[in-house]
Amino acid sequence: MAFAHAHLLGLEGLEREDLTFLLDTAASFKEISERDIKKVPTLRGKTVVSVFYEASTRTRTSFEIAAKRMSADFVSLTASASSATKGETLLDTARNLAAMRPDAIILRHNASGAPHFLAARLDCPIINAGDGSHEHPTQALLDALTIREHKGRVEGLTVAIVGDILHSRVARSNLFSLRTLGATVRLVGPPTLVPPEFRAWAEVTHDLREGVRDADVVMMLRIQLERQGKNFFPSTDEYARYFGLNERALAAAKPDVIIMHPGPMNRGIEIASEVADGPYSVIMEQVTNGIAVRMAVLYLLASGGREPEPSTPAGSAPGAGETAPIRGARRSG
Amino acid sequence: MAFAHAHLLGLEGLEREDLTFLLDTAASFKEISERDIKKVPTLRGKTVVSVFYEASTRTRTSFEIAAKRMSADFVSLTASASSATKGETLLDTARNLAAMRPDAIILRHNASGAPHFLAARLDCPIINAGDGSHEHPTQALLDALTIREHKGRVEGLTVAIVGDILHSRVARSNLFSLRTLGATVRLVGPPTLVPPEFRAWAEVTHDLREGVRDADVVMMLRIQLERQGKNFFPSTDEYARYFGLNERALAAAKPDVIIMHPGPMNRGIEIASEVADGPYSVIMEQVTNGIAVRMAVLYLLASGGREPEPSTPAGSAPGAGETAPIRGARRSG
Amino acid sequence: MAFAHAHLLGLEGLEREDLTFLLDTAASFKEISERDIKKVPTLRGKTVVSVFYEASTRTRTSFEIAAKRMSADFVSLTASASSATKGETLLDTARNLAAMRPDAIILRHNASGAPHFLAARLDCPIINAGDGSHEHPTQALLDALTIREHKGRVEGLTVAIVGDILHSRVARSNLFSLRTLGATVRLVGPPTLVPPEFRAWAEVTHDLREGVRDADVVMMLRIQLERQGKNFFPSTDEYARYFGLNERALAAAKPDVIIMHPGPMNRGIEIASEVADGPYSVIMEQVTNGIAVRMAVLYLLASGGREPEPSTPAGSAPGAGETAPIRGARRSG
Repeated sequence: MAFAHAHLLGLEGLEREDLTFLLDTAASFKEISERDIKKVPTLRGKTVVSVFYEASTRTRTSFEIAAKRMSADFVSLTASASSATKGETLLDTARNLAAMRPDAIILRHNASGAPHFLAARLDCPIINAGDGSHEHPTQALLDALTIREHKGRVEGLTVAIVGDILHSRVARSNLFSLRTLGATVRLVGPPTLVPPEFRAWAEVTHDLREGVRDADVVMMLRIQLERQGKNFFPSTDEYARYFGLNERALAAAKPDVIIMHPGPMNRGIEIASEVADGPYSVIMEQVTNGIAVRMAVLYLLASGGREPEPSTPAGSAPGAGETAPIRGARRSG
Repeated sequence: MAFAHAHLLGLEGLEREDLTFLLDTAASFKEISERDIKKVPTLRGKTVVSVFYEASTRTRTSFEIAAKRMSADFVSLTASASSATKGETLLDTARNLAAMRPDAIILRHNASGAPHFLAARLDCPIINAGDGSHEHPTQALLDALTIREHKGRVEGLTVAIVGDILHSRVARSNLFSLRTLGATVRLVGPPTLVPPEFRAWAEVTHDLREGVRDADVVMMLRIQLERQGKNFFPSTDEYARYFGLNERALAAAKPDVIIMHPGPMNRGIEIASEVADGPYSVIMEQVTNGIAVRMAVLYLLASGGREPEPSTPAGSAPGAGETAPIRGARRSG
Repeated sequence: MAFAHAHLLGLEGLEREDLTFLLDTAASFKEISERDIKKVPTLRGKTVVSVFYEASTRTRTSFEIAAKRMSADFVSLTASASSATKGETLLDTARNLAAMRPDAIILRHNASGAPHFLAARLDCPIINAGDGSHEHPTQALLDALTIREHKGRVEGLTVAIVGDILHSRVARSNLFSLRTLGATVRLVGPPTLVPPEFRAWAEVTHDLREGVRDADVVMMLRIQLERQGKNFFPSTDEYARYFGLNERALAAAKPDVIIMHPGPMNRGIEIASEVADGPYSVIMEQVTNGIAVRMAVLYLLASGGREPEPSTPAGSAPGAGETAPIRGARRSG
């Protein structure tokens, strides 16, 4: 079996076999980072370009380490150093990069749909490293891998996602993958951040204890402090009191619950240090699994040998648009 | 034949055989970037350092990809992260780098002549990646390569360069190379940006239609929006109306005209999207050729095996100065 | 013999055999950077991460070149692009990096003790690239290597360190290493910058001529211009008059004195150009030796094959704290 997609734009619409294949591939790459010599020649002679319009330590670094451990050449652009300051459009910047013959472009952008926009127009694999409040597929994949390692499966588990669901691309990507993999998802947070519309997708509760009750997995989201003052919640103190995960709140969960957080953590706000550093926390394992997931994604998309895609005129592809999760022809079932 | 120079500081003063040799070498490197494994061991164990005092996406990235595809180690410095903020002189910064034994230093600097200044004082190949409004030699080389690919030659062609000639290092480098290669150059723009002095070097016109008439190549320059308000032209709207290239203006050119732009483009100002994305545009090919040209330049200057240059006391070399285009002993004819 | 430490946090407390072993190793690596092919496979498949919370050209570049010449993968983070801007703690940032399985973390931080703090908590070699006004061990090692090359030894030499001793991590690290290696150290500067407490460690004088008299080595420190106005000295002009090294002041030193400076230099303030560029200056050799020293440190700490350290609970290790220079079990005598 080969991966059926030319890009990784999101997890919405991926089938269970796609997700399982990605996770299996990632699992098989894990041991490389535990070797004394952490390097395989798999992507030697491939050029991987990352373009980040938003700051990020861990995601960019994780992709960079993943690429280099596969022997790819990695070239990093950040928006402040890029032509963005000269007013160039995203498409022109990306076309220019594509003309340099990269084997993959990793994009983080504040606009939802930005990677889909490029994927429809460029003949180069696009990997979404976070687009606005839309999706962050490699994060949800590393989350799923971590869950699977601890629980042996995802199907049948109850996963509580707690925090600012409304604005979280991490939550959205996890919602798609966890549902597809057969988990029950509970969304937990104040009504302003978990609006009733989400009931179409998952269980919704505005009470932390209730949300955590009998959960196999509790996934805490980062509170974006820069949104404070926009009336989503009265104060970080009050948020912490009602939705911060501490040991007391955790008592209602299953005895073998695992605690996750995509980082960076606001200790004392959405998560107490006693929990972040406690025995149920698998937060550092998530980071380690991030390398394996990104190695897998780069391997599946950038290693080439793929048939060229039919050229897709801008805007005219069937199903083209900013909401379609995966662009590009399926290669096989 | 070997390349006769130790540095690439500019194209002024290069002889036709030098230019042709650079272009031939670049042409021979093009196919590497089309391979499945885009990597050759040519510069393995060589250290290439880029020092950029001005922001740039494409030039730095292009050099980085070129260096890595040749297996060089590439180290990138930007001014904001460098000792420039601590008040160190350019020469001290560069001497420090040179003491780390790089095989080439790629310099972009806002001061015209900065790379020449270093080349006269350091025993390390210096590659000018743009110095003030003086020269940008690798840009003009990739332009010439693109022209040659489309037209089979440069000699005898009419090339119109349109825009802010006065401040453009791209225009200056192209002027030198295109004249040396036997093209007729026409400089087109408002009198404030194409002063009469240029008539000593090229045809000058202040009318776009006239400038484009029967041209084989139209090379649009980027309008530096940050200069606006300094009275070079009344408004970008007015500039676009008189000097923006659209299909109508293009009608006077030869039927097989090619359109070039060094990027980043101001769409709707100096170039209409219908032209930038139209059938005559070779703008993306320019970017692709940039990789090949920079591979060639790095190969010719950084691959070593060269006799050490006689040490040149600061300021005392025959012909030393900020205007001399190429510093260093010729190695052979 | 193997290096007895898991980290390089400072030179305080290192024994003479440790220092000599580091210098011998560095000396043996020097010739690699003089080769035509400057590359050895020693650290192939190792991941070296640098995390710089303060700007630096030469130190980061020197580590990067050193790592790449050893074939390590080098990943660079700067604070402005990192999660620091999102309020993440240093420890969380470092834990995240450690979870990506690097073989060494190089840290520059404005807080004294930051690398010690991490070394006590992470199972990854930490290399201090400068912590506040505390230590800068690789700088002092390259200084010692340079002295040893010129004088054949360090023992018995008189080394004058001139400038802002109070705030200088370079001075502190040199004080430790030079004393351990048997040199006599003289600290020279105005009383505000060389307080009497230092007499416990070294000779102290507030007169430049007296400080330089019969010195084998004069090591100038950079004046941190950003401290000016805080009443450490009246003006840079006055500082230069009393403590700036020029040829006249140098006349009292030994005839074969060598002049050092860690850079970046303030020419005309702490050092006159006639001295910086004069026959006694070994400033560029220091830079060259920096590569060799960093290659040695990376080789000794990142090449692995080491027994894992006993896990050290945060804050509870015997002797843990910000002032302990070297954390981690000694491996051998």
